[in-house]
Amino acid sequence: MDLERRDLLYDGKSKRVWSTEDDRYVLLEFKDDATAFNGVKHALIDDKARINCAISTYLFDRLAEVGIAHHMVSRVSDTSILCERVRIIPVEVVVRNVVAGSFAKRYGLVEGEPLRRSLVEYFYKSDELNDPLMGEDVPIVLGWAKKWEMVLMTEQALQINDLLRDFWAGHRVDLLDFKLEFGRTADGRIVLADEITPDGARMWERGSGRHLDKDVFRRDMGDLSATYHEIYRRVFGEDLDG
Amino acid sequence: MDLERRDLLYDGKSKRVWSTEDDRYVLLEFKDDATAFNGVKHALIDDKARINCAISTYLFDRLAEVGIAHHMVSRVSDTSILCERVRIIPVEVVVRNVVAGSFAKRYGLVEGEPLRRSLVEYFYKSDELNDPLMGEDVPIVLGWAKKWEMVLMTEQALQINDLLRDFWAGHRVDLLDFKLEFGRTADGRIVLADEITPDGARMWERGSGRHLDKDVFRRDMGDLSATYHEIYRRVFGEDLDG
Repeated sequence: MDLERRDLLYDGKSKRVWSTEDDRYVLLEFKDDATAFNGVKHALIDDKARINCAISTYLFDRLAEVGIAHHMVSRVSDTSILCERVRIIPVEVVVRNVVAGSFAKRYGLVEGEPLRRSLVEYFYKSDELNDPLMGEDVPIVLGWAKKWEMVLMTEQALQINDLLRDFWAGHRVDLLDFKLEFGRTADGRIVLADEITPDGARMWERGSGRHLDKDVFRRDMGDLSATYHEIYRRVFGEDLDG
Repeated sequence: MDLERRDLLYDGKSKRVWSTEDDRYVLLEFKDDATAFNGVKHALIDDKARINCAISTYLFDRLAEVGIAHHMVSRVSDTSILCERVRIIPVEVVVRNVVAGSFAKRYGLVEGEPLRRSLVEYFYKSDELNDPLMGEDVPIVLGWAKKWEMVLMTEQALQINDLLRDFWAGHRVDLLDFKLEFGRTADGRIVLADEITPDGARMWERGSGRHLDKDVFRRDMGDLSATYHEIYRRVFGEDLDG
């Protein structure tokens, strides 16, 4: 599909969303910007937009093959994809396989310890409130999501976790945790939305434990662009411009 | 039962726990101390120990009448009760009927708004970590509680909520939220533990919305001792020393 972009609907921390001539679709444009700590830390990362667009497109295609509905229609450029227009459910769904990040800090645990089973957490999507944690019941009682939507998102998140863990394991990468967002389509379906990239995941090189995700930026552990190029190489078997 | 107290096992913010000559039982002694913000704010409140001991004893008796197991064996003085010795499950169970306190702040909501149904939240009992919120699955995955224990505590918390709401409504008091703790007995039962007092609840006078709980102290809204005396009068129909 070839649709011209029109108005800027949303200028986010790492993506822009544009309307198109067909109001059923939006154009999602990846940016080179990296932010952390709710925007307090910011930098431009060479090739991040192209790499994240390639990885997200690739993973959305893999998920579609096993029947997981998502918002992507097609890739339209190196840094942008055409997507169904959805209303994002304000619940960030986080799947955790290993203790890390805010989870480790919150409960006083050691980072890197595998969990006995995968765990799903929910955060209220609100920059203003710093995306607060919430129990599974809170969005239902406050009217932010229906119970069936919470159940659907939870089931799909765990299914996606199984697929992504296997996928990354095949590239000698451990998937510690990742964040998903879902959206409601105009005709009432729930589809996976947003992106699936190392921006919203925590991934460590198997064996060495070397960080291959945005923590490299958050924690000043090295060159994030080089890290993202490394991930690209693992997924596609060649250099971005190779 | 009449048992002599021996060693101080625990000196908490509002209670002391003593061992007795029989290691199946402990003596729980209420203190006049009021604290807030994890101990940052502190004061002595006249008659708080006597009032909380009387109210907690009274409510434990009411709950026992409808079959809810708790740790109290008997009242032994104006400010102390004999209890089964339990290991406290490190999960604070909070029931909410109305938006208030940390819940209002966390999600950017207006205090005083009734929830469409009662909500249960779980906090990891850890002063060091500031009692962090957690989803229902976290204590199970981290080994702090079994799933059946979480289900039992949740069901009992909601049952207790029904009873306490009715009880306080009969005294023209709205019960907004309250905290419960549970313990494991030596023979593997789960019983309600800790205390049931205005220290761990949020209660507003019906109609006026006047605070009749520890928020009076937390938020410098008046004389906490007078407030607790007022609650005593509503429950027992007379003054503490009347």
